[in-house]
Amino acid sequence: MRIAIASDHAAFALKQALLPWLAEQGHETLDLGTHGPESVDYPDYGAALADAVAGGHADRGIALCGSGIGIAIAANRNPGCRCAHVSEPLSAALARSHNDANAIALGARLIGEEMARACITAFLATPFAGGRHQHRVDKLGVAPLEGISA
Amino acid sequence: MRIAIASDHAAFALKQALLPWLAEQGHETLDLGTHGPESVDYPDYGAALADAVAGGHADRGIALCGSGIGIAIAANRNPGCRCAHVSEPLSAALARSHNDANAIALGARLIGEEMARACITAFLATPFAGGRHQHRVDKLGVAPLEGISA
Repeated sequence: MRIAIASDHAAFALKQALLPWLAEQGHETLDLGTHGPESVDYPDYGAALADAVAGGHADRGIALCGSGIGIAIAANRNPGCRCAHVSEPLSAALARSHNDANAIALGARLIGEEMARACITAFLATPFAGGRHQHRVDKLGVAPLEGISA
Repeated sequence: MRIAIASDHAAFALKQALLPWLAEQGHETLDLGTHGPESVDYPDYGAALADAVAGGHADRGIALCGSGIGIAIAANRNPGCRCAHVSEPLSAALARSHNDANAIALGARLIGEEMARACITAFLATPFAGGRHQHRVDKLGVAPLEGISA
C-alpha cells in the first residue's frame, strides 16, 4: 500500500522508527514531515495527512502527535479523511471494519513503539465490513454535517 | 456546566446511565438522543452534538457510540467542535489542557461505565493550559485546513 505518515515534533522519533518498518513490509511511504525535532504545529501536519489521503496520493494515513488527539481532530476537518484515534489494536480493527477509516492517529507520548506497530498492523490488515455500515460512512463524507434536531 | 450528550443505539444504555449521574453533580444536561434502542446512524448524533457545542447551547459535549470512533469523526466535521476520542482519564485530561477539547467521545462497547465516568470527570475538571497551545487550537477552528506541502 501507499502509506502517508505525518507527525509533529513530539512524535518525530516514532515516525522515524516506523518508516523503515513500513518499508520492510513492502509498503510505499510518503513522509509528510515533520523532518526534525523542532517545535511545529500539529494542525498543519494533520491537514497535510488528510490532504494526501483524501486526494488519493496515499491509500492509508498514519497521523502522530503527543497524544494523537490534536492531529486526529485536524485530519477530520477534511470530509475525505476518516481518521480514528486509537491506542490498541481492537479499536484500530473496528475503525476499519465499521468506519472504513483511511487514517489512524496514535499518541507517541502515551503508547510505545510496539503498541503503535500492533495498531498499524490491525489497521492495515482489516477490511471494511460494508453492509449497514456503508450509508453511515457515506454520511461522514459531507461537511458540514446536519444533526438531528434535539 | 451545561452538558450536551448524544449517542447511537449501541451506547443508548450508557447514555441513560450517565444522565442522572451528571445531574447529581449539578450539571444541566441536554439529551440529544437517541431515545431508544432502535438502530440509528451515529453521524447524525455526532453532528447534533457538534452543533450544540459549537452553537453555544452547551459548554461541553459527550458523544457515545459503540467504539467512540465514528461519532468522533462526525463531530469533528464541525470546525467549532474539538472532539477527543479517549478511553482513559489521562487522555481526557490532555485533551482539555493541550487541545481545549469541548467534547469527548467514548466507546460503550469498549469501556465500562466506571471508566466512562472517570474520563468525563477528568475532562470536566481540567482547564486549558493556553500558552503555546493557543495558536494551535486556533488553527483547528477553520475548515478546510491547509496542510504543509510535502
